[in-house]
Amino acid sequence: MATNPYPRTKRGAERREQILRAAEVMIGTQGFSAASIADITRHAKTALGTFYIYFSSKEDVFRELVLEMGQLTRAMVTEAVADAPNRLEAERAGLKAFLRFVAERPSLYRIVEEARFIDVEAYKAYFTNFAKAYAAQLREAEASGELRPGDAEVRAWALMGIAKTLGERYVLWDETADIDHVVDEAYSMIRDGIAP
Amino acid sequence: MATNPYPRTKRGAERREQILRAAEVMIGTQGFSAASIADITRHAKTALGTFYIYFSSKEDVFRELVLEMGQLTRAMVTEAVADAPNRLEAERAGLKAFLRFVAERPSLYRIVEEARFIDVEAYKAYFTNFAKAYAAQLREAEASGELRPGDAEVRAWALMGIAKTLGERYVLWDETADIDHVVDEAYSMIRDGIAP
Repeated sequence: MATNPYPRTKRGAERREQILRAAEVMIGTQGFSAASIADITRHAKTALGTFYIYFSSKEDVFRELVLEMGQLTRAMVTEAVADAPNRLEAERAGLKAFLRFVAERPSLYRIVEEARFIDVEAYKAYFTNFAKAYAAQLREAEASGELRPGDAEVRAWALMGIAKTLGERYVLWDETADIDHVVDEAYSMIRDGIAP
Repeated sequence: MATNPYPRTKRGAERREQILRAAEVMIGTQGFSAASIADITRHAKTALGTFYIYFSSKEDVFRELVLEMGQLTRAMVTEAVADAPNRLEAERAGLKAFLRFVAERPSLYRIVEEARFIDVEAYKAYFTNFAKAYAAQLREAEASGELRPGDAEVRAWALMGIAKTLGERYVLWDETADIDHVVDEAYSMIRDGIAP
């Protein structure tokens, strides 16, 4: 039976979404190897066979979660920085929004990191797509004089590295950290590092 | 039989080292789950039983590799920055040395990242120990006026995040990248971000 990645009925879309959310919980907490398809459908309160209507394998649902995480992260950051008066303030707002997102969806963070070992192409695509869009924005801001000249691509990866590592250290590992303080300190370094 | 983590004879030390190096190659290229102890001893050209003289399990040799990677990275960075005339130049030298180290030992990099899923305590210890030493140096440099005031711990993690992410993007994924250019661009951002 062919899988049906884009169900046409509302019921189909809801069921597929239910399975995705269950996969996020099970893979995000137990890891890819330990979480079985049976665990996922049990958690989704659906029959085992239903899984195969929408996904061909555990690898398939995993890849979908990584793709979804990429879309979610980009959409969330884009929205968070939409009202920023300039690129520097957008950096602060984006970093803060990312750290909040990690706090809200820790399992998706873990899924992306595990992709390095399960589906390296999805892993690379996640960061490469993000970096491409990020670098384009930095380039624009440089052109309009909001940032001083520099290699936008290297900057994008360096800034992603800061966000990723602070997210792990101060959000995933430490539920009591003062996120605003972390953002202020990191932002002060970032601002003076790229301000005109 | 009890394992013998610190062999007293030269021959014992050599054999243990041979197994560690084989484990680095096999786990570093195939991943923790796929690499078996039989693969490791075959690659080390030693009998399967010899493994158990020095290590109690695959988890045990893996933890040892992560610990070793931490010691190696710290020793390598310490040596690389020893001649730097000040903290800012030490940042540049440290970043460059780290990226060269990733190029030379890509398997150890992968092992540390996989530790997040295999031995999270070893993973946290790797980064936490590094960050502690790093923050202490940043604090000293701040006290002597080489850096402007700031939260040394947040800075240490942010700087580690830059190095880690640039290492993945420009060394592991891209063997043709101009490392000196990447270091120059990242350093320019770091320097102005923390200079007095």
